[in-house]
Amino acid sequence: MKQTTICALSTAPGMGAIALIRISGPEAIAIATKITGKNFDSFTSHSAHFARIKRADKSIIDEVVVTVFHEGKSFTGEATIEIACHGSTFIQQEILRLLLENGCSMAAPGEFTMRAFLNGLLDLSQAEAVGDLIASETARSHEVAMNQMRGGFSNELKDLREKLINFASLVELELDFAEEDVEFADRTQLKALIEEVLAYIQRLIRSFELGNVLKNGVPVAIVGAPNTGKSTLLNQLLGEDRAIVSNVAGTTRDVIEETLNIDGILFRLIDTAGIRSDAEAIEAMGIERSHEKIKQAKIVLLLSDFSNAVSATEGHSSMSPTEAGAWAEELRSTYPEKHFLILGNKVDMRAASNEFEWEFATPFLPISAKSGIGIADVTAWLVAQITQDFNSGQETIVTNLRHLEALQRTETALLAAKNGVTTNITGDFIAMDIRQAMYDLGTITGDISTEDLLGNIFSKFCIGK
Amino acid sequence: MKQTTICALSTAPGMGAIALIRISGPEAIAIATKITGKNFDSFTSHSAHFARIKRADKSIIDEVVVTVFHEGKSFTGEATIEIACHGSTFIQQEILRLLLENGCSMAAPGEFTMRAFLNGLLDLSQAEAVGDLIASETARSHEVAMNQMRGGFSNELKDLREKLINFASLVELELDFAEEDVEFADRTQLKALIEEVLAYIQRLIRSFELGNVLKNGVPVAIVGAPNTGKSTLLNQLLGEDRAIVSNVAGTTRDVIEETLNIDGILFRLIDTAGIRSDAEAIEAMGIERSHEKIKQAKIVLLLSDFSNAVSATEGHSSMSPTEAGAWAEELRSTYPEKHFLILGNKVDMRAASNEFEWEFATPFLPISAKSGIGIADVTAWLVAQITQDFNSGQETIVTNLRHLEALQRTETALLAAKNGVTTNITGDFIAMDIRQAMYDLGTITGDISTEDLLGNIFSKFCIGK
Repeated sequence: MKQTTICALSTAPGMGAIALIRISGPEAIAIATKITGKNFDSFTSHSAHFARIKRADKSIIDEVVVTVFHEGKSFTGEATIEIACHGSTFIQQEILRLLLENGCSMAAPGEFTMRAFLNGLLDLSQAEAVGDLIASETARSHEVAMNQMRGGFSNELKDLREKLINFASLVELELDFAEEDVEFADRTQLKALIEEVLAYIQRLIRSFELGNVLKNGVPVAIVGAPNTGKSTLLNQLLGEDRAIVSNVAGTTRDVIEETLNIDGILFRLIDTAGIRSDAEAIEAMGIERSHEKIKQAKIVLLLSDFSNAVSATEGHSSMSPTEAGAWAEELRSTYPEKHFLILGNKVDMRAASNEFEWEFATPFLPISAKSGIGIADVTAWLVAQITQDFNSGQETIVTNLRHLEALQRTETALLAAKNGVTTNITGDFIAMDIRQAMYDLGTITGDISTEDLLGNIFSKFCIGK
Repeated sequence: MKQTTICALSTAPGMGAIALIRISGPEAIAIATKITGKNFDSFTSHSAHFARIKRADKSIIDEVVVTVFHEGKSFTGEATIEIACHGSTFIQQEILRLLLENGCSMAAPGEFTMRAFLNGLLDLSQAEAVGDLIASETARSHEVAMNQMRGGFSNELKDLREKLINFASLVELELDFAEEDVEFADRTQLKALIEEVLAYIQRLIRSFELGNVLKNGVPVAIVGAPNTGKSTLLNQLLGEDRAIVSNVAGTTRDVIEETLNIDGILFRLIDTAGIRSDAEAIEAMGIERSHEKIKQAKIVLLLSDFSNAVSATEGHSSMSPTEAGAWAEELRSTYPEKHFLILGNKVDMRAASNEFEWEFATPFLPISAKSGIGIADVTAWLVAQITQDFNSGQETIVTNLRHLEALQRTETALLAAKNGVTTNITGDFIAMDIRQAMYDLGTITGDISTEDLLGNIFSKFCIGK
């Protein structure tokens, strides 16, 4: 695979002022020389040159800037050419066509990054983070991917593997002296080590839920009786967000429609289409539908109309504050892993003299979805639920399902090893389990890899990376 | 305006492997140094450098490649920085936000190219061609834009202006010696020159129709009685095209749906939605609608069912070959500037022994839209209509409405000057007309320009160019 020279459009598809076409492989420089008539071999690495790209019949496709990166000095580790051309789709196509005619192959998705991995410039988890980095839409998912790309996660795994290697070697040494019945590896120490590594692995496994949430968004459900103001609340939340996002170019509309980016955390509002459809239809679908939404959510906002309720029993909505409180309690006991917040809506419509007297076991905030009162408290509360789940920032967070599975296999092997030490079985079984744990950890960074695995990982990348 | 430092995303919006952010202006290098900690001022022009872009709080936004272009050596003529970052929209936004915080302004559409013009690196028609080049979707429109960007058109205009300048000077010299009644400018020669320039200007004006067609596509109508196979023909034409286009990445779907790119010429199929809606509805809209389509079209394909017609009068469709021929003749006399082609469809359903006996004054091709017989002849005929209209390739073609209008004003002034010479009016009037013609020509290349004009031209560009 490393023998071919690959090319691809590396910038986003479609028309732009400039497009970037990348070529990597042994023939990259020769091909660039052939299509421009400039001898790129004679130029220093990392230098940019004006050039005209010409077809075989000498007709000019474009005037471009070509940057040359010599072998060993590029992202892939191979000789690399980057062509910055005018960004018409026609020109992009014509240049790619010309490159294919001159011996390039179209790069498979992620193939540039895969080559960087195969040439030892990135480990596997770093390479995967490149893909995550490109896909990241929020500050937090970006931060996690950036940390992983820069090798934070890999270094921690490397430490763990090294600890295990030492002990595995000692255990295996015992096998050579099996008849003497010696123990080079102190069983108490070994058990403590396994427990230490296990605790670490288990923390990483637990981090996946947050990692997944940071990567894909926290599912949030807004539920409540009809006419309590769900639609208004949704628009208020989206409206605030939209004002922030619209300052910034390049944000796609469909992302804005149903997601909120608060302090860099992505919240996905479930079934907002349902909220927006007409009130009667929602009433008909009733409580059944609310339960479906709650099941999918991590966070549930339970909206109740507090406009005229002077005490817990006097709400004029179809669900009184007391009823809302009772429902919230019931839900909390059914779904202990979810977060619930009662929102007492329309408080601006209450007589000024009325003070709040309700006490709920469930968290509660008075708001006015219409006027915006209390909305900032709601968004702050949303963020707090996620950050309190996992007081992170510094700690490594697992976002990748493949990594989660490898960690779970590692956990299984370590539990077996721990059991072996406790029940005092012979060293060879313990060594086998520890070797298995090391193997599983190794698949994360790619110290252990197969072609199938690589193909599977990089096919998820976008082309040109 | 040249005092500010501008920045923009120069690649297509959205997610890609890589995105390119461009900075141009006096502070470009200082700002790049500030956000990366690398001293770009000390690097040679056209050199690329690995760098980490950091926020004020030292958090890393991305690991990037920064290319520096020194003042006088860049596209804009100003100091320029290009940042190749990972192509997530989040990273793009964060880098732009950081640049704005550090004193950059967001570039207006086309502002990079406008600066190149203001710094004398491109004339106005070349600058406009940059926009056309980016928007070009076909080989022909690309060729025209490339020729214009490389200065072909400008050079011709420059020659014309120089000829006029010489004569205008001589005519004006006469004014200083008005009382002596001398003629420095030979009237016969002057008239010949004006006629030469006029002929050239008029050819350019005529070329606009083709230029417009190359840029925006040739409108083609497919008309005929119901059930003659219009929908099948449309799919056959689009199907062939789609097979070609789908080999190439980055082509947008909505362009494919209703356009054909044959030999680099874009054909737009008018009202294909109508063709695809159900047959009865079309019948109801009837001939009225066909006429609407024909009016908009440059080329009309008139489809008739020839499956069982052994002679001109025996068609079994609702419009016999004879009727089709008569209708075509009628249309040709109504619209002499349009091209008509009668297509005798379903010829594969005819008995083998039947030979064609029809003779039409209108061009005619036998086809089978279903089996594909004759379709290559149809596409060849389509291309021939356009290339015969203007046997181009070498000659300059005007594609820009602003240029057309300037040429038309030039023509008016030259006709007045010619009239003045013929009727022997005094030199000062002739000089005024020639000066006016020179002024109008000058607005094309930007030798004459106003701020309004520039704002208007460059606002049509995409941002980042």
